[in-house]
Amino acid sequence: YGHTLWKRGRQLITLTAIAVLLGFIAGCIQILTETLVNWKSGRCSRNWVLNKSFCCANIPKAGQKLLTKRDELKCIDDGLWHEWSNPLFGFFLFVILSLTFAMSSALMVKYIAPMATGSGISEIKVWVSGFRYKDEFLNLTTLIVKSIALPFAISSGLSVGKEGPSVHYATCCGFVITNWLLKHDLKFPEQAEYLIASTAGGVAVAFGAPIGGVLFALEEMSTTTEFSLSILWKSYYVALAAVATLQYMNPLRNGKIVVFEVSYDKDWHVQEIPVFIILGVFGGLYGNFISKWNVHFVSFRRKYLSKWRLNEVAVLALITALLSYFNEFLKLDMTESMGVLFHECIAGDGESVWTHRICQLDANTHVGAFIQILMSLLFATVARALLVVVSYGCSVPAGIFVPSMAVGATFGRAVSLIVERFFIGHNIITPGTYAFLGAAATLSGITNLTLTVVVIMFELTGAFTYIIPTMIVVAITRLIFSSLGARGGIADQMIIFNGFPLLEDSKEDMVFLRNYSALDIMATNISVLRSSMHLSELNDFLVHNSNFNGFPVVREMEKNALESECIGYISKSTIQTQLLIEASEDTSDQTIIHFDAQNVHRNGLQPNELNFSDLVDTSPVTVKPSMPLSILIRMFQKLGCKTILVEQKGILQGLITKKDLLKFQRLKHREIYGPLYVFNE
Amino acid sequence: YGHTLWKRGRQLITLTAIAVLLGFIAGCIQILTETLVNWKSGRCSRNWVLNKSFCCANIPKAGQKLLTKRDELKCIDDGLWHEWSNPLFGFFLFVILSLTFAMSSALMVKYIAPMATGSGISEIKVWVSGFRYKDEFLNLTTLIVKSIALPFAISSGLSVGKEGPSVHYATCCGFVITNWLLKHDLKFPEQAEYLIASTAGGVAVAFGAPIGGVLFALEEMSTTTEFSLSILWKSYYVALAAVATLQYMNPLRNGKIVVFEVSYDKDWHVQEIPVFIILGVFGGLYGNFISKWNVHFVSFRRKYLSKWRLNEVAVLALITALLSYFNEFLKLDMTESMGVLFHECIAGDGESVWTHRICQLDANTHVGAFIQILMSLLFATVARALLVVVSYGCSVPAGIFVPSMAVGATFGRAVSLIVERFFIGHNIITPGTYAFLGAAATLSGITNLTLTVVVIMFELTGAFTYIIPTMIVVAITRLIFSSLGARGGIADQMIIFNGFPLLEDSKEDMVFLRNYSALDIMATNISVLRSSMHLSELNDFLVHNSNFNGFPVVREMEKNALESECIGYISKSTIQTQLLIEASEDTSDQTIIHFDAQNVHRNGLQPNELNFSDLVDTSPVTVKPSMPLSILIRMFQKLGCKTILVEQKGILQGLITKKDLLKFQRLKHREIYGPLYVFNE
Repeated sequence: YGHTLWKRGRQLITLTAIAVLLGFIAGCIQILTETLVNWKSGRCSRNWVLNKSFCCANIPKAGQKLLTKRDELKCIDDGLWHEWSNPLFGFFLFVILSLTFAMSSALMVKYIAPMATGSGISEIKVWVSGFRYKDEFLNLTTLIVKSIALPFAISSGLSVGKEGPSVHYATCCGFVITNWLLKHDLKFPEQAEYLIASTAGGVAVAFGAPIGGVLFALEEMSTTTEFSLSILWKSYYVALAAVATLQYMNPLRNGKIVVFEVSYDKDWHVQEIPVFIILGVFGGLYGNFISKWNVHFVSFRRKYLSKWRLNEVAVLALITALLSYFNEFLKLDMTESMGVLFHECIAGDGESVWTHRICQLDANTHVGAFIQILMSLLFATVARALLVVVSYGCSVPAGIFVPSMAVGATFGRAVSLIVERFFIGHNIITPGTYAFLGAAATLSGITNLTLTVVVIMFELTGAFTYIIPTMIVVAITRLIFSSLGARGGIADQMIIFNGFPLLEDSKEDMVFLRNYSALDIMATNISVLRSSMHLSELNDFLVHNSNFNGFPVVREMEKNALESECIGYISKSTIQTQLLIEASEDTSDQTIIHFDAQNVHRNGLQPNELNFSDLVDTSPVTVKPSMPLSILIRMFQKLGCKTILVEQKGILQGLITKKDLLKFQRLKHREIYGPLYVFNE
Repeated sequence: YGHTLWKRGRQLITLTAIAVLLGFIAGCIQILTETLVNWKSGRCSRNWVLNKSFCCANIPKAGQKLLTKRDELKCIDDGLWHEWSNPLFGFFLFVILSLTFAMSSALMVKYIAPMATGSGISEIKVWVSGFRYKDEFLNLTTLIVKSIALPFAISSGLSVGKEGPSVHYATCCGFVITNWLLKHDLKFPEQAEYLIASTAGGVAVAFGAPIGGVLFALEEMSTTTEFSLSILWKSYYVALAAVATLQYMNPLRNGKIVVFEVSYDKDWHVQEIPVFIILGVFGGLYGNFISKWNVHFVSFRRKYLSKWRLNEVAVLALITALLSYFNEFLKLDMTESMGVLFHECIAGDGESVWTHRICQLDANTHVGAFIQILMSLLFATVARALLVVVSYGCSVPAGIFVPSMAVGATFGRAVSLIVERFFIGHNIITPGTYAFLGAAATLSGITNLTLTVVVIMFELTGAFTYIIPTMIVVAITRLIFSSLGARGGIADQMIIFNGFPLLEDSKEDMVFLRNYSALDIMATNISVLRSSMHLSELNDFLVHNSNFNGFPVVREMEKNALESECIGYISKSTIQTQLLIEASEDTSDQTIIHFDAQNVHRNGLQPNELNFSDLVDTSPVTVKPSMPLSILIRMFQKLGCKTILVEQKGILQGLITKKDLLKFQRLKHREIYGPLYVFNE
C-alpha cells in the first residue's frame, strides 16, 4: 500500500521534501544573518546571543504575536536591546566583527567546500541545459558550507547579496533530495527539472517572492533548455511550499514575507515619465558597465590574486567597513537601508512612528543640510557600485542582485531630492518611489531580466499602483542595455568568460552559422564498433577509447570503416554495464559479441556468442554533410541530442558532439566580431 | 534617414502600433459596454446617451479629476443620474434591452463576420503553433465586428465574458498591423511571435493586468510553440503599452486599472487552510464538470440547433434576463457583482461609504435574513454555472473567464457566511477573501492555468497579503483537476473536440508512440520532381498535385521513383513564384528546368534552360524508417518542421507531414484510451 502511494505521489513527495528543507534552511540563514548583523550594533541585555527580533519578541501583548516597528523602538527605550553608546568602541567592534565574519566565511569556503564560492547561477544554468558539472558542486558538503558561510559573508558588510547563493543552496537541496529519494529511476533531464524547480524556490525564499521565483526559473533558467508546463508546475509548487515553510518559521518575528512593505497611496503623474526614463537609462548603463568591469576584475583577480584569495577578502572587508561606517546608507544592512529609502515618508499613519532624517526634508530645509544628504546618497551610490565591481566573485558566497538594488535605490532617492527641490516642489511626488524604481532599473540592468524583476519588486514591496512606471523603467533599461550591445545578463557573461558550454541561439550567430555545414565541423577520425567483435577486441577498444562517451556501430562492407553502413549508436556506459552483467557467466576472450540484429537472426546465437543488438540505438539522429549549422544547433538544443551522426547515403561520414559545435560557434564568433572580452595581456 | 530609422526601429514601431490600437479599442469597448449596461438601469438627465461615469464626470472638484464611489452616490442623490423607479417599467425595459442587445450581437456576427463568434483562443493557439487557419479569422472585418458585437453580448446579461474575445480582437490587431507594416519581410514564425505578443495585450487590457497578460501568452499560448526570450520581450512591451494607452484614455473615469481594488489588511490564519482546500476542490470540480458538460452541449448544439442559432441566442438571453432580474447577484453586471463580493466590508475608512447588505451581517442577524442571503448566493452559483454551460459557444462573442470567476465568487462568499456563522465567529476572517479565492479557484479550474491565474487575481484586486492562500487554492485546484484525468483547460478541450491540429506531448502518448516508427505512418505514394523537367511537364505536375505544399526532388537512377536518390525538397509556392518571375522572359513549353546543381555544373546552362537548383533545400530534415514516433513528434514540435522525409541509405522511402502524425496520434489514443468524448449518438 505504501508502495502504491509512493508510486503515485513520488513527484509530490519529492517536491515537498525539497521545499520544506529549503524553507527551513532559509529561515535559519535569516535568523543567523540578523543575529550577526545585530551584534555589530548592540546586544540583548537578556541574553547576548539573541538578535534584536528575538530579544524583543516578548514585547507585544499576548494576543498579538507579531513584532511591529513600534515595538522595536519601545524595546530599545526599555533597555532590553542595548545599542553601543561609546563611539570608539562601537567603531572598533564594527570593523573587527566585519573582518572576522568575512574571514570565517572565506576560510570555510577555502578549506571545506571550494565549490561554495561565488554565486553559482552560471554553473547551474549550464548544468540544467544539459552539461553535467562536477558532483561536488551540488553535494551535501557544499550545501552545508554555503548555508553557513553565506550569513557570515552578508553580515561582514561586503557588497554581496544572498540571492545567487540562495539559488545555489536551493539547487543543492534539489540534488541531494532527488538523489536520495529517486535514486533508482532518475534520469538526467528529469533531475534537471527538479533542479530548475529548486532554483525557483531559492529565489522565492531569498526575496519572499514565490511568483518572482517561478518567473526566475522560467526567464533565467529554462531558456537554455526546453520550457514545459511540467517545469512550470514543479517550480510553482516548490516556490509555494518553500515560502510557506519560511513564513511558518517566521524568522523575522513580524509575520511578514514582504520585506519592505510600503503603501504608496499617491498616484503617479504623466509628467514624471521623463524621470522614469532617466532611471531606466541609469539602470541600463549600470548593468552594462558594472558587468563589464566586473568581468575585467575577475580576469585580473585570476591572474594576479589567485594566491592571495584570503588576503583579498580581508582587505576588501576592511575597506568596505571603513568606507561604510561613516555613511548612514552604507553602514546599515543593505535591506534595512533599502527599507529607509523606499519609505513613503507619510506621517499620521498610526503604525509609522519611525521616521528617518531623509523624510523630514521640505522647502524650508537649509541648503547645507540638503546638500549634505544629497552628497551622502551620491557617495553611497558610487562607492557601492565600485565595491560591487570588486566584491562580486571574491572567495565567499556572493550574489549581485541585492547590492545592485541598493545602488539603484540610493541613486533614485538622490534623483527624487533634486526633482522635489528644483522641479516639482514638495508633497507632490512620493520620493520613495524613485528609490524603488531605481532599484528595479539596476536589478534589471545587471540581470537582463524583465518580467521577473517587475514581479520581484512588487512582491518585495506590495507597491501595486506603480505597476506601469515599473514596467516602463524596466523596458527602458532593457532597450538601453541591448542597444549598448551587451550580451546577456551577468550570469551569461560569466558563462562566456569562464568558457562554460552553453548553446545559445543569438541571431547574429545564426546568420553566420548558416554559411557552414556539418561537413565543416564533423570529426572524421572516429572510433567505430564493428557489428561483431571478440570480447578481447572489445575490451581493448574500450580501453583505447576511454575518452569517448559512445560509438557508432557499422556493418563492414569495405575495408575502410568510413565506407561502411552505419547501423546505430551505442553509449559506452551501456556496453560497460552489460559486460559487467554478462561477466558472471562463463565468458572468455573468444566470446563473440554481436551488435547487429541481422547477424543474430541469420545465424542464430551460438553458445560462445552474446547478443548486444538490443542495446544499440538503431535510429540515432542523423544528418547529411550539407546540413547547415544553424539547423544543427537547434537540433542539439531542442531535441536534447548529445551526439549527431553524419551520413551520406547511409554511409557514416563523421560525428558531431554538442561541444564541438559550441567550440566552433565561439571560435567563429571571435573571428568575426572580435573577442568578447579584451584584456591588456 | 527615415529608412534607417525604420530598419532599426521596425520591431518597436510595429509593436507600439499594435499596442496603441489595441488599447484604444479596449477603451472604446469599455465605454460602450458601460453605456449599454447603464441604460438597463437608468438614464442621465443631462443627456440620455451618456453612461453613469460620464454623466457624473463633472461632479468631482476641479483639482481632483477622478470619480470616486462617493461622487457616484452623490450624483444619484443630486438627480443627475436617474434610476428607473417604476418596478414594472424597469423590469420590462431590462428584459427588452437584454434581448435587443443579444440579438444585435448575434445578427452582426451571423451576417457580417461569422468568424467573430465564440472565444477564439483555441483557434489562435492552433495558429501560432504553426497551422495557419483561414485569413478571415483575423482580418479587419472580424476585428471590427468582434469589437462592436462584444459590448452588446456582455451587456445583454448573457453569462459570457470579454477576455476570450479580447484575445481574439487583439490578435486581429496584430495580424492587420503586421500585414500592413511588415508586408515585405514577414515570415510565418515571425508573425506568430507578434500574434502571441498581441494575445498578451488582449488579456492585459481585458483585466487591466499587464503581467497577467504576459504570463497568459507564456503559459497558454507559447507552450505549443517554441518559448523564447524574444516572445517574452514582445509580449511584455505590447502588454505594457496597451495598458498604458488604456489608462491614458481612462474609460472608467476613476483613473484605476485595477477593477475591484480591495485592501485586505487582516492577515490570514493557519486555521483557515481547510477552507482554502474546500475552495480549491470546488474549483477543480467546477473546471472538470463545466468543461465536460459544455463540450457535450456544444456537440448537441451542432447536431440539433445549427439551424436555430439566432433563436437559441434569443431564448438564452430571455431565460438569463428572467432568472437574473430577481437575484441581486445575477442582476448586476458580473464585474460589479464581483466588486460587491470581494469587498472587505470594513466601515470607518473615509472612502468606503458604500456598503452592501451582505456586509452588514453579524451575530445578531436574524436567521431568516441569513438564510435568505445564503440561498441567494447559492442560487446565483448554481444558476450561473448552468448558464455558463449553455452560453459559452453560442453565436455571439463569448468568453468564459469572467463568468467562471463570478461562479467562484458567489460560492466563496457563501462559504464565508457559513464559516463565520457556525465555526469562527464574526470579525475574525475577512469574508471577501473567500469570494476572491473562490474566483481564483474556478478561473484556474476552467483554464488549467496556475501562475497566470494567481497574477491576474492580484492585478485585479491588489490583494497582495493573500499570496500564499491564493497559491494554495490554485495548487489544490490543479491537483484535483489533473487527478480527475481531465485533459487540459477548456481551450485545449475545444481544440481536441473540433479536431484542430495541435501537437501535444502528453506523457501517455509518448509511451505508446515509442512502439511505432516512421515506417508505420509515412506516405509512400508520393509525388516527386525529377532533377530536370520540361516546363510543360512541370506545369502539368503542379496542376495534378495542387493539394500538396511541397515536393521532394530526386535524381533518377532507376525507373522507379522510390528507388531514386533524394537531393532535396522544394515548396510549391517557391516554384510558382519563380515561374511567374521567369515567365516574363521568353520561355516555351520546351524550356528545361534544372533542380539539380550537379547537372548545371556539368553541362553549363543552355539558352533554353532555367536553373532552379538554388531554390531547392538540399538538406531537409530526414530520418530513417526505424525512427520512433516519440522522437519524430519532438522534431516536428521543436524544430518547426512541416514535412520530414524518410530515407534509407540515401534513397527516398516516404514522407511524413505534421498532420499525418497528428492524425495517427489521435487515432491511436482513441484506440487505446477510448474516445475523448462520448455522446449518446
